[in-house]
Amino acid sequence: MDALATQPVSIEKVSAGARLRQDDRVAVEEPLEIRIRRAGDEGADQPISVTMRTPGHDAELVLGFLYSEGVISDWREVRRVRHCGASGNVVRVDLRADVRFDPARFERHFCITSSCGLCGKTSTGTITSQVRVRRVEATWRVDVPVLHELPARLRAAQGAFAATGGLHAVGLFDRTGHLGAIYEDVGRHNALDKLVGARLAADALPLADSLLLLSGRASFELVQKAAAAGVPLVAAIGAPSSLAVDLARDAGMTLVAFLRDGAFNVYAHGERVCTGAMV
Amino acid sequence: MDALATQPVSIEKVSAGARLRQDDRVAVEEPLEIRIRRAGDEGADQPISVTMRTPGHDAELVLGFLYSEGVISDWREVRRVRHCGASGNVVRVDLRADVRFDPARFERHFCITSSCGLCGKTSTGTITSQVRVRRVEATWRVDVPVLHELPARLRAAQGAFAATGGLHAVGLFDRTGHLGAIYEDVGRHNALDKLVGARLAADALPLADSLLLLSGRASFELVQKAAAAGVPLVAAIGAPSSLAVDLARDAGMTLVAFLRDGAFNVYAHGERVCTGAMV
Repeated sequence: MDALATQPVSIEKVSAGARLRQDDRVAVEEPLEIRIRRAGDEGADQPISVTMRTPGHDAELVLGFLYSEGVISDWREVRRVRHCGASGNVVRVDLRADVRFDPARFERHFCITSSCGLCGKTSTGTITSQVRVRRVEATWRVDVPVLHELPARLRAAQGAFAATGGLHAVGLFDRTGHLGAIYEDVGRHNALDKLVGARLAADALPLADSLLLLSGRASFELVQKAAAAGVPLVAAIGAPSSLAVDLARDAGMTLVAFLRDGAFNVYAHGERVCTGAMV
Repeated sequence: MDALATQPVSIEKVSAGARLRQDDRVAVEEPLEIRIRRAGDEGADQPISVTMRTPGHDAELVLGFLYSEGVISDWREVRRVRHCGASGNVVRVDLRADVRFDPARFERHFCITSSCGLCGKTSTGTITSQVRVRRVEATWRVDVPVLHELPARLRAAQGAFAATGGLHAVGLFDRTGHLGAIYEDVGRHNALDKLVGARLAADALPLADSLLLLSGRASFELVQKAAAAGVPLVAAIGAPSSLAVDLARDAGMTLVAFLRDGAFNVYAHGERVCTGAMV
């Protein structure tokens, strides 16, 4: 468990007629500001985003965010990522001089972590033209029993959740159900950014052989980030939204949700879900 | 149930060896852009925020957002709120000429729905000086059995959740546990903005005699919006974050979380929780 992810808190526990003072732990939530500077540019850093996140893996979060926003395509475009100031809550990214980066475009997309800057666009064709989405072509299939096992494997690895009950998680699995990576955060989008950023830094994108499991619901934002990273199958323990379903269908991504209690629903591209003899 | 909140979707349900095509419903998620125009100002509308929300009660959402941001203090400062364009996803707010509104300040706070624009500030004193927070002074108490009943009452009123399993809810209760209002949305912050906006339009703020129940976790953002509306007690079915606890303690607000399975934890100002003879 990441030492930065939780902190102690004194509480009163009320249960079955008793009221007791106890020591407990809560998930840490703090703001993170992302600033950009491009080599050769004069002037101040450009603040492009603020998000409430759980500290830890900040560099990965920032790389994943810039990747899913389409600012960078490769970790080699980034010269340096570092905290600045004493708070630990500001990260500056130095980009190579040849990276196309338009701060004005970010003013429009500034709210990207809670939305998509796509107001007034109702056609998913328009939407997918404005954010980074890889069309998924993978033809592999996953067996139903493998999917059923994923939630328990994710939960077993959620150290900070076990301590606080208060973090979202994303897990990256292979087709046999082996957990390759897990990230936790108070914000779902941050957990996924951390995962994608870590794989970017390892030069391991796209994630064409992987499944992604989300501990909560599947929103548009999460499906978009997964599609940007080229994940062919996203499974969520919670519900999907309308726009998440639309995007998964457009991107060729298999979308599974309500993966719990020995059942699940398939919302898009069920051809990668192999029910074998059951069909 | 709001007709705009859910939409039909065709799915495959995989369960106990069966794979069946079914009709189901999902929660609608669409972007909403908020634009501001002040009477007497020339020039174009100022877009100040984009959020992914569930359509319905857009005017309330916008009013609640502007209130918790400190832009307006009273519904009389708003001349008109209306959709513009054909998509239904853009709302324009006409403010009275005497309302202080600085678009530049919003560039800094543009990401407010997923964060707070407070990067680099770790002191909660600094934080509470930058967002609207009412210091809660209410001295009333609520009985423990009333708190235990709230989740079932909220769930029973969640029409769109019942259909989709995919929406957050906030409920406003009185001290006897009577449900006065409920709003649902794919975004927790939107559900609370809708509730606060509706009470603002009814000239019923602050909410000094009310309890608020959150269907999920208690983040900083939700506690801040509740504190802006003057709610003395916030209860969450899920976990609180570190910053939510800090803000509740600073604001004089009672914060209850993990309200489920016949128990709960008190994180701040337990003096409003009356255990009666149990103490």
